[in-house]
Amino acid sequence: MTKRIRLVIEYDGTAYGGWQYQLNAPTVQEELEKALLELTGEKIRVTGASRTDAGVHARAQVAHFDTQSRIPADRFSYALNTLLPKDIRVQESAEAPADFHARFWTKGKEYSYTIWNSTHASALLADRAWCVYPQLDIAKMREAARLLEGEHDFRAFCATGGQTKTTVRTVHEIRVEETEPHLIRIRVSGNAFLYNMVRIIAGTLADIGTGRLTVDTVTRMLETGDRTIGGPTAPAQGLTLERIDYYESKPDWVR
Amino acid sequence: MTKRIRLVIEYDGTAYGGWQYQLNAPTVQEELEKALLELTGEKIRVTGASRTDAGVHARAQVAHFDTQSRIPADRFSYALNTLLPKDIRVQESAEAPADFHARFWTKGKEYSYTIWNSTHASALLADRAWCVYPQLDIAKMREAARLLEGEHDFRAFCATGGQTKTTVRTVHEIRVEETEPHLIRIRVSGNAFLYNMVRIIAGTLADIGTGRLTVDTVTRMLETGDRTIGGPTAPAQGLTLERIDYYESKPDWVR
Repeated sequence: MTKRIRLVIEYDGTAYGGWQYQLNAPTVQEELEKALLELTGEKIRVTGASRTDAGVHARAQVAHFDTQSRIPADRFSYALNTLLPKDIRVQESAEAPADFHARFWTKGKEYSYTIWNSTHASALLADRAWCVYPQLDIAKMREAARLLEGEHDFRAFCATGGQTKTTVRTVHEIRVEETEPHLIRIRVSGNAFLYNMVRIIAGTLADIGTGRLTVDTVTRMLETGDRTIGGPTAPAQGLTLERIDYYESKPDWVR
Repeated sequence: MTKRIRLVIEYDGTAYGGWQYQLNAPTVQEELEKALLELTGEKIRVTGASRTDAGVHARAQVAHFDTQSRIPADRFSYALNTLLPKDIRVQESAEAPADFHARFWTKGKEYSYTIWNSTHASALLADRAWCVYPQLDIAKMREAARLLEGEHDFRAFCATGGQTKTTVRTVHEIRVEETEPHLIRIRVSGNAFLYNMVRIIAGTLADIGTGRLTVDTVTRMLETGDRTIGGPTAPAQGLTLERIDYYESKPDWVR
């Protein structure tokens, strides 16, 4: 009998070409599928909620797959962790409704972006943070962050090349926290995100923090949809997918 | 003219055989000496405050060296960081008194030991924490930690093979903090530490936290000096040298 399993997966993305299967680099999806083949003997395709880029980390990526295996659903985490490399860990496994879909049932997501703000880069955070050398004005960054909260057309915060019907998204909250000296964490939660949206938000807030851009830049970005007036796309290694929230049953708009 | 330079160095110890030069593995000292040779043309020997073991990290190791170079003392950090691998970063460089000694002038040190307490290991902390699976009783760990504070003979908290005249040390404070869910950080500060002392403290507190040992084990260890009744030496990757405090001039007992 086929059952659908839902996984929560933590990974350090440093060694991977991202989540999704590709030819030129190992990916997290590929490592999971290899481990599932070894465990079950089945050629299983895993569907992830978020196609994180190369170097991006996840505290709690979600994925689903179908299997005929008689391994109890909650034991998959333990069994997979004996086969996976140590920079990928399944934190939870559970049986899901037969129509559960890791991507289509998402209600919201939270990302964090980590900035190391110091005159020298951090050795311990080399693969986990973006080093910004000029001192950041956090109050200004917070002011700009507040302007981004709510429902907006985030076209200016989208990498060109993303194909999506609408660029309207709702950002629930952006918090800019100095958690330790030199360490600034931007937490962004929203209903859904455009391609590179969090990294463009982080790059733009950083430029506002250094004074290269003014706070009202974000207002003009939202009004004009002009990507070019914003800050850079902050590098991948600072980004972590922190959490994904789900509807409890299939949303109406999913066929 | 010779001047003495004092460095503060951060490193991720994962890739290294420890601080001190050895034949079989790259070390942090060796990387620094290579970079200094490239920078100054001089064969410089660097003296570190603490000989951290393989896999142990440092937020702020301190070292000194002598040079004839005309590079201003405060520029060494910038210059060295362009030559060092990204998992080693010099955070400060400054001229020190000619008789300054990174090891002999130390007044105290602080270490942290990180435990990931969960049913599954952490991918993001694979090289930064020790994963303890059974749930830890933090209140019990704190109770035991308090018994270790003060001046004691820490013979039972010393790896056999350490040669030292006296095993009496003063632990200023041990804090056991749950900084995030599943993440327990033990912070230990003291005047000086025996070989593996913090890792044996961490291993013993963990065994007390799981209930394998009772709180009064630490009292018996202090009284009897018996290493074998304590917990394991917790693995290297959880340990970070956080801070070193110095006397402002040469202590009386240093020749």
